[in-house]
Amino acid sequence: MHESLFEKKFSLLKAWESPESIHHFLTTHAQSTRAILCSSVTPITAEILSLLPSLCVIACENTGVELIDLMECRKRGIYVTNAGPAFSQDVADMAVGLLLAVAMRIPASDRYIRARGWSDHQCFPPRTFKLRGKHVGIVGFGNIGSEVAKRLEAFGCKISYNSRKQKPSIPYEFYPQVIDLAYNCNVLIICCALTDQTRHMINRDVLKSLGENGIIVNVGRGPIIHEQELVTSLMSREIAGAGLDVFDNEPNVPNELFELDNVVLTPHRGAFTEEVFSNAFKLTMANLEAFFSNKPLITAIKQYD
Amino acid sequence: MHESLFEKKFSLLKAWESPESIHHFLTTHAQSTRAILCSSVTPITAEILSLLPSLCVIACENTGVELIDLMECRKRGIYVTNAGPAFSQDVADMAVGLLLAVAMRIPASDRYIRARGWSDHQCFPPRTFKLRGKHVGIVGFGNIGSEVAKRLEAFGCKISYNSRKQKPSIPYEFYPQVIDLAYNCNVLIICCALTDQTRHMINRDVLKSLGENGIIVNVGRGPIIHEQELVTSLMSREIAGAGLDVFDNEPNVPNELFELDNVVLTPHRGAFTEEVFSNAFKLTMANLEAFFSNKPLITAIKQYD
Repeated sequence: MHESLFEKKFSLLKAWESPESIHHFLTTHAQSTRAILCSSVTPITAEILSLLPSLCVIACENTGVELIDLMECRKRGIYVTNAGPAFSQDVADMAVGLLLAVAMRIPASDRYIRARGWSDHQCFPPRTFKLRGKHVGIVGFGNIGSEVAKRLEAFGCKISYNSRKQKPSIPYEFYPQVIDLAYNCNVLIICCALTDQTRHMINRDVLKSLGENGIIVNVGRGPIIHEQELVTSLMSREIAGAGLDVFDNEPNVPNELFELDNVVLTPHRGAFTEEVFSNAFKLTMANLEAFFSNKPLITAIKQYD
Repeated sequence: MHESLFEKKFSLLKAWESPESIHHFLTTHAQSTRAILCSSVTPITAEILSLLPSLCVIACENTGVELIDLMECRKRGIYVTNAGPAFSQDVADMAVGLLLAVAMRIPASDRYIRARGWSDHQCFPPRTFKLRGKHVGIVGFGNIGSEVAKRLEAFGCKISYNSRKQKPSIPYEFYPQVIDLAYNCNVLIICCALTDQTRHMINRDVLKSLGENGIIVNVGRGPIIHEQELVTSLMSREIAGAGLDVFDNEPNVPNELFELDNVVLTPHRGAFTEEVFSNAFKLTMANLEAFFSNKPLITAIKQYD
């Protein structure tokens, strides 16, 4: 989308236009390449990195960097930047939108009316979930988590959080174990990155702790929740509902969910607005410009904690 | 729902249990009745009032009092109370939930996934409506309007409002004409009461002023919007979308809306939670207790401005 603007500032090697294999292309043309521009759908493996001896920085136009071999980058001293802050407000909006949609049964209500259930005086269950006073647990308190907290405070929710470590600057209660957070909360909102530590972190035990009146929202990455256990929990009403923007094996969604009225599904569109892409582009440009002029990177991923 | 609790405190005449006509029942049994307890679905006409010579107060368990002849009450010095504050937070939640659902196309996304559009790689339009920085116009700045403003400020929206008169205590810009508010805003949220002045206040001219990128949300009363003109505006894309909890002729909704992806429909459930009914009951009780012990009413409707 922004290729021509990038080309004005940088000398761009277009691997995707070459008929050569990526291995051959990189060994032949990219030996002096100092930066990679990538999106979160491109794996940057240790093998790719081994073909790029001059590489110093990987600038990712998205938020998730789970397909980049961060351990190898760390070993080689390669910086990784993402465009997280450009997305965080829109993703936070989506998290709250999904929570409200589940709590107020908005898509289910919309289906009920369009199927003429209301005009035919068919029964429709009342809302039972009042937001005010509810205790919301935020899993992963980075840019997105803090934006979610700001929004839900305005609805009268109490906020607590779980993350890798406690953050002294955050005024909310910290739970070192996500299962304890779930046990104490009415809502769990997943905003963390996908890592080896967070993969399948939300399993059936955590969902059972959240309980039969609890709602879970995921705007992080699909595999943070054990999807099959979530399906089981939802079908057996161990939790009250789920709002999901991300899935284990996108674009595939477990078919069992299609039958459930207490689930709201969106196709990984949390941050899918034109303004966001434009802001992400600007931030990626700014990171690369900072790198090439020896200034501090703006949104470097912390690889060392 | 709370009948037995009322009976413990008050001597209750149950008009609805009598086989007599309401006229006969009131003239025979209710001549010393000092208070009416009613909901917003019961018309209290001048004729009914004329049958109740001792009446001093009408306590409404809901918010809307449009079926009560307020002019006649004013003439006779009859107080009217409602339970508005018990509902305002939940209705504000619904207003924001509907706005997010329309802006992020949440029910349309949910339909798309359930119809296997995503897994079949069918096209789906991106979100184009970023909430942050948008200008939201609130029509009717009472309990609900102020709760909506509080929530949307946390999303980074700019707030302005229209109401019968400017309120000096409110920090937002006031627009005396709703059409000017619409012209200057990206979103219009209808939170006012239905009166002779507000009926059909939102007509096609106001919608055209809101414009093709604008979203309208109605959690007030259906007839505040000219429904057929709204349908026309939506079908011809004069506005971008609508979130509607209330309609002109409930439970009937214009069939044309069922075909539109940019509309979100809920069956007048803004405040339909158990906790809300319990709070509304407590507030109604408190108003009646205040009246019978000669204390100031808690939520008297202002009939004189």
